[in-house]
Amino acid sequence: MDERLEKQLAFSLEIDKEKNIFRQTHLSGHGRNENDAEHAWHMAIMAYLLREYANEEVDITRVMLMCLIHDIVEIDAGDTYAYDEEGLKTQKAREEAAKERIYSLLPQDQKEELTALFEEFEAYETPESKFAHAMDNLQPLILNHSNEGSDWKEHGVTAQTVYGRQSKTRLGSEKLFEVADAILQEDIRKGNLPE
Amino acid sequence: MDERLEKQLAFSLEIDKEKNIFRQTHLSGHGRNENDAEHAWHMAIMAYLLREYANEEVDITRVMLMCLIHDIVEIDAGDTYAYDEEGLKTQKAREEAAKERIYSLLPQDQKEELTALFEEFEAYETPESKFAHAMDNLQPLILNHSNEGSDWKEHGVTAQTVYGRQSKTRLGSEKLFEVADAILQEDIRKGNLPE
Repeated sequence: MDERLEKQLAFSLEIDKEKNIFRQTHLSGHGRNENDAEHAWHMAIMAYLLREYANEEVDITRVMLMCLIHDIVEIDAGDTYAYDEEGLKTQKAREEAAKERIYSLLPQDQKEELTALFEEFEAYETPESKFAHAMDNLQPLILNHSNEGSDWKEHGVTAQTVYGRQSKTRLGSEKLFEVADAILQEDIRKGNLPE
Repeated sequence: MDERLEKQLAFSLEIDKEKNIFRQTHLSGHGRNENDAEHAWHMAIMAYLLREYANEEVDITRVMLMCLIHDIVEIDAGDTYAYDEEGLKTQKAREEAAKERIYSLLPQDQKEELTALFEEFEAYETPESKFAHAMDNLQPLILNHSNEGSDWKEHGVTAQTVYGRQSKTRLGSEKLFEVADAILQEDIRKGNLPE
């Protein structure tokens, strides 16, 4: 087997480990914790189905790819809960090291391509990145909402904190922020999310 | 919320259940059984990285989408192991009913689009479908190979049966069939796969 293909397969095998990185979000039906690979799969399909609501026109292939790869660094860096203040302080450094190690398994051109795509996602500047982030926010919201806010309750998260994150959904999609807002208002009303 | 968006979100929530459909394949490192959502995520990334090896030029967005959605019907129909002869007899009927129920949650245009994409995958005729199937074969192969063929051993599967399936990888990619062949020959040599 040539070296290029060998590297591509080594990377393909390595990312299998993302299935062992568990998030704070629980599956619907009060299921187990969700892992990063499932979350990424879910986001990519939602991105495709909801692309009509992006504020700006997006290259949907790039959005889906961002969704699919955005958590690969967590194989080394672990999942950092969106409302974990201590973890968030070291997240960047942990993810930088992971990015270098894992993407270096690929042939140089693909390493550069996927690293650039991940960095674009992180930078939150392009229409594609903003829309991918909207999915990163909306996907766990619909699961948590279906579970009567159990993830928020478990972590003592308040509406203010959740709005801090969800308000950025607006950067990718005004329409989907309206949806997030309606969901949050319902959860506040029902006592699933303390004000 | 308007009806269209409500349907899109209902479908998005419904497919969460795919994370509970477990396959016979085990994760690398002799891990637990893999589920359909993880498998689909893995296939979609591999399709993107390995697209240069497709026999014919492919629309990679369509390939990735096929990979992502191809097992949604298993939410109702369950996973049918590739070498389960009894299950394979009823698979088509079970999946037809599932296709109708689940995709009907979407707005009509998206139901038609995704149903057509799934049917295209199943028909194994277009370059995109053939390449997506190559991923459907290669992805579990690299996991099983990394686990010294434990899935084959567990089910008493022989090289002849595995070749029956893997030979179809050739329809999507001659190059990746060569890879599969080399992997299988190594596993036969090592006694991981009985001849």
